Amino acid sequence: MGIKISKRAMIAPASPIRKLSIYADEAKKKGIKVYHLNIGQPDLKAPKEICSSLSKCSKIDYLPYEQSQGTKELLLAWRDYLETEGINVLPENILITSGGSEGLILASAIVCNPGEEILAFEPFYANYLGFANLVSAKISPLELDAKNDYHLPSEEKILAKINPKTRAILLNNPNNPTGTVFTEKELKLILKIAQKFNLFIISDEAYGGICFDGCKSRSIFTLASEKDKERIIIIDSLSKKFNVCGARIGAIISTNKDVLYALNCFAQQRLSVSTLDQKIVYSALKKSREYIKKITKEYEIRRNAFLGELEIGLKAKIHYPNGAFYTMIKLPIKDAEVFAKWLLTDFSLGGETVMVAPGSGFYATKGKGRDEIRVAFVLNKTDLKRAANILIKGIEEYLKLM
Amino acid sequence: MGIKISKRAMIAPASPIRKLSIYADEAKKKGIKVYHLNIGQPDLKAPKEICSSLSKCSKIDYLPYEQSQGTKELLLAWRDYLETEGINVLPENILITSGGSEGLILASAIVCNPGEEILAFEPFYANYLGFANLVSAKISPLELDAKNDYHLPSEEKILAKINPKTRAILLNNPNNPTGTVFTEKELKLILKIAQKFNLFIISDEAYGGICFDGCKSRSIFTLASEKDKERIIIIDSLSKKFNVCGARIGAIISTNKDVLYALNCFAQQRLSVSTLDQKIVYSALKKSREYIKKITKEYEIRRNAFLGELEIGLKAKIHYPNGAFYTMIKLPIKDAEVFAKWLLTDFSLGGETVMVAPGSGFYATKGKGRDEIRVAFVLNKTDLKRAANILIKGIEEYLKLM
Repeated sequence: MGIKISKRAMIAPASPIRKLSIYADEAKKKGIKVYHLNIGQPDLKAPKEICSSLSKCSKIDYLPYEQSQGTKELLLAWRDYLETEGINVLPENILITSGGSEGLILASAIVCNPGEEILAFEPFYANYLGFANLVSAKISPLELDAKNDYHLPSEEKILAKINPKTRAILLNNPNNPTGTVFTEKELKLILKIAQKFNLFIISDEAYGGICFDGCKSRSIFTLASEKDKERIIIIDSLSKKFNVCGARIGAIISTNKDVLYALNCFAQQRLSVSTLDQKIVYSALKKSREYIKKITKEYEIRRNAFLGELEIGLKAKIHYPNGAFYTMIKLPIKDAEVFAKWLLTDFSLGGETVMVAPGSGFYATKGKGRDEIRVAFVLNKTDLKRAANILIKGIEEYLKLM
Repeated sequence: MGIKISKRAMIAPASPIRKLSIYADEAKKKGIKVYHLNIGQPDLKAPKEICSSLSKCSKIDYLPYEQSQGTKELLLAWRDYLETEGINVLPENILITSGGSEGLILASAIVCNPGEEILAFEPFYANYLGFANLVSAKISPLELDAKNDYHLPSEEKILAKINPKTRAILLNNPNNPTGTVFTEKELKLILKIAQKFNLFIISDEAYGGICFDGCKSRSIFTLASEKDKERIIIIDSLSKKFNVCGARIGAIISTNKDVLYALNCFAQQRLSVSTLDQKIVYSALKKSREYIKKITKEYEIRRNAFLGELEIGLKAKIHYPNGAFYTMIKLPIKDAEVFAKWLLTDFSLGGETVMVAPGSGFYATKGKGRDEIRVAFVLNKTDLKRAANILIKGIEEYLKLM
């Protein structure tokens, strides 16, 4: 008998964003151009401060470990950045992580014993499932309604979902994959519920500041009393705010002494975050507002161009998100995963096709989201318009085959 | 009532290597020079290929995610490097990780369900405890004997330690913290036992190739049958082999289909490893042998200088390790942690002191290692001699206070 891996390893979910990558690679090998609507990988240049910091690294011949908590410069710069967001903390409340991903793994491990649950609103960032699973915790999903623009359900519905195993509520604001920006009223409701049931709040703010139509995202931390702040764990990341996805720099923020102690122990174990990546990003944090404002304006243009084209072509109303750079789209197709694969293996328009993320991976509830896709509008306007038209044509062709 | 963190967060062990860092920082603020014998952070320059790759990055203005498995160039280069070590695998058997640390966390999660155990020989690399704890697995310790130069105990003793919860044997070869290089006979014994009880073998080879006195380290993988290779998970890292601790580049290697599938799922979730770090290291892997040979020669000189000085000063026999660059030293002191702290807070010799890692953190068994310290001989020869004399004087002074 072969050797058996653990249960969590057996059920580890493949990323819906990346699992079709092999088919995209094969399409590219055949000479087909693939527009990537599946992943939030913008084509915009990183802030010039990052590029100039990097050019200053060219003489480095020694790359030692950094402090486990993160470099002093970066911690101070992050503190200052958070202050501009109304989040007043000390550098010792911050720990630099390897992207938002590591922060989410650590937060899951800190709030949950094995088998305990984190309440999350679905559709949610697909990898929440995997982060929780890695540490044998569970995501307990509560569905959001597309008709309500993916805003929170009623207090009653949320309360009904809480059970003795619930240890935290996880909120991603602005939201990936829906682009919804939660209102002050909604954030206060989450605070109220968390307080009532003594729950942690994991606030994933990776897209903080990327908001359209004059809408503003607000950290739930800024609405909490000093006491309630201790139940909030903020997850932050520079990947999207500065278009440095490949730099793997995030941060986890807490004012809770026990959480901070555990965080620092976990961080010491894995020694440190990339020395180079830390070196190149901190100067950009000082001018973050300016840069985020600039890219947000660009994403708003892209959103309008892409979704406008899709609405015309699909003759359907599409959810225009207020933040981040994703939206969920319902298709007249039974299994969007089969369709997404087909787009890569059997379809092309003038030698081009699109890659989209199947919706089901953004749900924990079995069967949900099977007729949905998540798209990121991060390519340039021309490419997005072309991608929209390829997608429209692809849907038409696919329906003819059914 | 305050909000409670998880049990694993409550018991997360602080790193014995890093937990006294605040006292070192305070000593430095007082103007005291601290020789760091506590951490394996060599002062040698990285291979020139790394420096020249880095200088080529100076024009980068865009840092996208890389493939979750790692860049093609790096996977191919690692495959070639492994081949020179007698480990014949395909690039698809390799996954690039954020240092050896991430590989060890993933391996622990893949072999163990919560509460299950990994058998490790103590003293062991302290962070094994933390990696297992993060995923609610356990390290089950079996003590090595200093008098036997920290080689494996008898087969009977190992067998007696295996129970129904044991899922893997973890072997670090060459060993941190003892510097022991395990013999072919020992590796075959581990293989035999793993086969008998259908266990995984986690083979941490971060120090592979760093061996003294003409001794050679061999990967257990090279001694296994094709079938038994599937129970071996190799953990590798460039941190020590190339003196790029801060680059956070490691690899996890397996020929087991189930392990590989789970690894790739876990990897997709955290997206990717630092783009820059991957870019700068792969060219060095081609000339790895040459570089590792050069630094090994240097470490041998340092070992002899440092341990020679200590043996004279302490009038005691010290374990001369055959590999890596650490050794454990027994002190005539009851609590080495109190002593290590005292060295930083209350002692100095001519304005200088040393930082050492308390031994107890390298043991899981309570009470063990309290009269030991782990030292790394990675500073230059002059500094090491000076550090040895400071340590000798420190011990003398401390004993007078007792």
